[in-house]
Amino acid sequence: MGSPAEPLYGKVFTRPRVVIVGGGFAGIHAAMSLAHLPVDVTVVDRRNHHTFQPLLYQVALAVLSPADIAQPIRTILRSQPNTQVLMDEVTGLDTSAKTVSLSSGAQLPWDCLVLATGATHSYFGKDEWAPLAPALKTIEDATEIRRRVLLAFELAERQMVEHGWHPPLNFVVIGGGPTGVELAGAISDIAQLYMRRDFRHIDPAKSRVLLLEGSPRVLAAYPEDLSAKAEAALTRLGVEVHTKTQVTNLGPGWVEAGGKRMEAVVTLWAAGVQASPLGKLLAATPGIQLDKRGCVVVDDHLNPPGVPNVFVLGDLAHFEQDGHQVPGVAQPAMQMGDHVAKIIAADLRGAPRPPFRYFDKGDMATIGRMDAVAKVEWPFKAHMSGFPAWVTWLTVHIFFLIGFRNRISVFVAWIWTYFTFTRGARLITGDLKLPGWQDQLDAGAKAGLDKPSAD
Amino acid sequence: MGSPAEPLYGKVFTRPRVVIVGGGFAGIHAAMSLAHLPVDVTVVDRRNHHTFQPLLYQVALAVLSPADIAQPIRTILRSQPNTQVLMDEVTGLDTSAKTVSLSSGAQLPWDCLVLATGATHSYFGKDEWAPLAPALKTIEDATEIRRRVLLAFELAERQMVEHGWHPPLNFVVIGGGPTGVELAGAISDIAQLYMRRDFRHIDPAKSRVLLLEGSPRVLAAYPEDLSAKAEAALTRLGVEVHTKTQVTNLGPGWVEAGGKRMEAVVTLWAAGVQASPLGKLLAATPGIQLDKRGCVVVDDHLNPPGVPNVFVLGDLAHFEQDGHQVPGVAQPAMQMGDHVAKIIAADLRGAPRPPFRYFDKGDMATIGRMDAVAKVEWPFKAHMSGFPAWVTWLTVHIFFLIGFRNRISVFVAWIWTYFTFTRGARLITGDLKLPGWQDQLDAGAKAGLDKPSAD
Repeated sequence: MGSPAEPLYGKVFTRPRVVIVGGGFAGIHAAMSLAHLPVDVTVVDRRNHHTFQPLLYQVALAVLSPADIAQPIRTILRSQPNTQVLMDEVTGLDTSAKTVSLSSGAQLPWDCLVLATGATHSYFGKDEWAPLAPALKTIEDATEIRRRVLLAFELAERQMVEHGWHPPLNFVVIGGGPTGVELAGAISDIAQLYMRRDFRHIDPAKSRVLLLEGSPRVLAAYPEDLSAKAEAALTRLGVEVHTKTQVTNLGPGWVEAGGKRMEAVVTLWAAGVQASPLGKLLAATPGIQLDKRGCVVVDDHLNPPGVPNVFVLGDLAHFEQDGHQVPGVAQPAMQMGDHVAKIIAADLRGAPRPPFRYFDKGDMATIGRMDAVAKVEWPFKAHMSGFPAWVTWLTVHIFFLIGFRNRISVFVAWIWTYFTFTRGARLITGDLKLPGWQDQLDAGAKAGLDKPSAD
Repeated sequence: MGSPAEPLYGKVFTRPRVVIVGGGFAGIHAAMSLAHLPVDVTVVDRRNHHTFQPLLYQVALAVLSPADIAQPIRTILRSQPNTQVLMDEVTGLDTSAKTVSLSSGAQLPWDCLVLATGATHSYFGKDEWAPLAPALKTIEDATEIRRRVLLAFELAERQMVEHGWHPPLNFVVIGGGPTGVELAGAISDIAQLYMRRDFRHIDPAKSRVLLLEGSPRVLAAYPEDLSAKAEAALTRLGVEVHTKTQVTNLGPGWVEAGGKRMEAVVTLWAAGVQASPLGKLLAATPGIQLDKRGCVVVDDHLNPPGVPNVFVLGDLAHFEQDGHQVPGVAQPAMQMGDHVAKIIAADLRGAPRPPFRYFDKGDMATIGRMDAVAKVEWPFKAHMSGFPAWVTWLTVHIFFLIGFRNRISVFVAWIWTYFTFTRGARLITGDLKLPGWQDQLDAGAKAGLDKPSAD
């Protein structure tokens, strides 16, 4: 019997060993749903924490603290005696030997493997853009974006005091999907509303927020009327929305798009995602197919064809239903996680496996302080926008946050933020430089912008 | 008139310009007390935030989030129209030209200079120890210590799962002053109480916490009976207190003290402080004296002798009262800050300057979850210990936290932590390595500790 109080090695297992790689929505839901089955569960993640990704942009814009939306995976699962958590990186996998390799070289055996390592950002082959235009996937990404946005205002104020001018405060967000829309709206909020009283020499409200989207509309995955509403709401907030605008190049302090080069004090990337590299490791197994973003094509039992003891979930899975690919968002990931437990339970009983079907309750994105768009599918069908959509968004996100403490602290932070116009987590830590900033100062000084000191 | 809505340069000042360097307790209190005087105040700090240092150890041990105890300096001071905040580093100062130099090379003129840049850690000339044994002065220090302590447990669990053994979990705290005592008590807490249910293969309660102090007793600045009570309380928590134990050397994964070499998975430094380097810049002015820690000797108007328009406050000042040096803690810093405004007000009225006198209300240090020692001087004189001292400590610290939101969030975090035995901010971010860890694994493997896998 695999009692979790003993080391994993050096003993004989009699219960099926389920190894779950990835502690995101899919992996955590799979582990939680397996709590009462006679299996031994190991969750492997290279991070110690589960991140509530839908609120990551609020960490990036200083509303919430990182710990408000992140919880140790082993704390979430600590009351499940059949589950252990291993903070390690999976470096290889072998579907015939039924093992995964870990960073130390050790092999972790499994009877059933659940892959849920999600997605990462894609710079479409231009990986040199990554340090210039950070994307938003992890807590570290969020604090890096926060550092850059807050630092831009501080450096402009400093330059104004010391030299009487500052480079334009242009914030460029590349990509008009939900993340790009939420980031652009939140930057506009912070500049227009939250920073105003704090500075003496610059006017944060005069900074520009540009949202660049290659396709003809923002939120392209949403119905057209909601895209139009989102664009109108962004425009009301002062965001300059440029659709049909492809970014062709970018560098420290500038972005080239639609044939024009614009200065950018901070550039953020919300344009592309690709599957985590684990999909490629799996692709060595014959018969396994990846789509163009590296997602593993799975059948309605969430297996790649011909590998019934390997499940691929969440953003790493390419699952089609009614001719459409299920999107890489939180809801299908959670449902897939729960479903894997149902399949394993059926296997244990010798019953036929139930097919997975995604139950779409809808989709929503916030736009700044009091606005949102929502495509509701359940409990009724509706397109919502404005304040009611925003309240719905708040309620749903508080409800889905894992951990009672996080619910309290996020609730308190929101009340505080929305009523006092103060951001609670306006911390700049780490490096005090911005890419390209010095170039812009030098160019300005050369152009004679520096005013001579009165002294 | 220096209206704060215009750039600092290119205009004529008619109001005295007060430049405050440093946004700690002394600098913030000086700025706040100058709010209603006819002076133009500039606060310069290289960080954007004021840190409530007495609670920094709770960030290091995952009770609080960094933003709970840090607030943007410009937000604290935003309602004072006569005050501006500049995030920049002072690189030089000239008391005859009455300017400070900033990192960009610009000069900031002043009529009155307030230096309050505090103290930093001292490794007594062994600066190569700093990356091996981090000290606790900044938010970055606190998250680095948090990373190391939490990672130690994770890596031990991983090693246990993959190889059936792990190096000893020895946490070594060097220095038995208030910071060392608070860190040792809090590490013991987290190991004994907060981690227990989360791990399957290691027993966090079996980790050792060693507190090494060179002098004959911990809390050497406190009365002897409180030192004895603190040592007894630490021992009850399982901390191994070694007094009269000098650290002679340390390296990645080990500490040498009292003639013995001990393994240390995490080493923390709480042994020495020295004045910030700004004191040295000032020492170029004739007649200015530094003590052996680099603090500037000041008279009872908080001026170095012969420089009446320069004030030195807080940990950077060496101020003697009744034959004793006033300690480098928060209370005298705040009082000195307030007092500078009184002196400047007197100068403006042409009245004689009031002398500074430190009003000592007492001192306190927590020891773990429910214990503390306090030397109370006001409103009555007493030596307190145990639970009553701890409740007093809680009350005082909540009261002195700047910002209503921080008071709420710290209060909620404490209630949560003390009742649920869960730490809310158990985040590991950044590098996933510990210094010396791999050496210890290699040594263990060589010694035959690795158990062969059953597979």
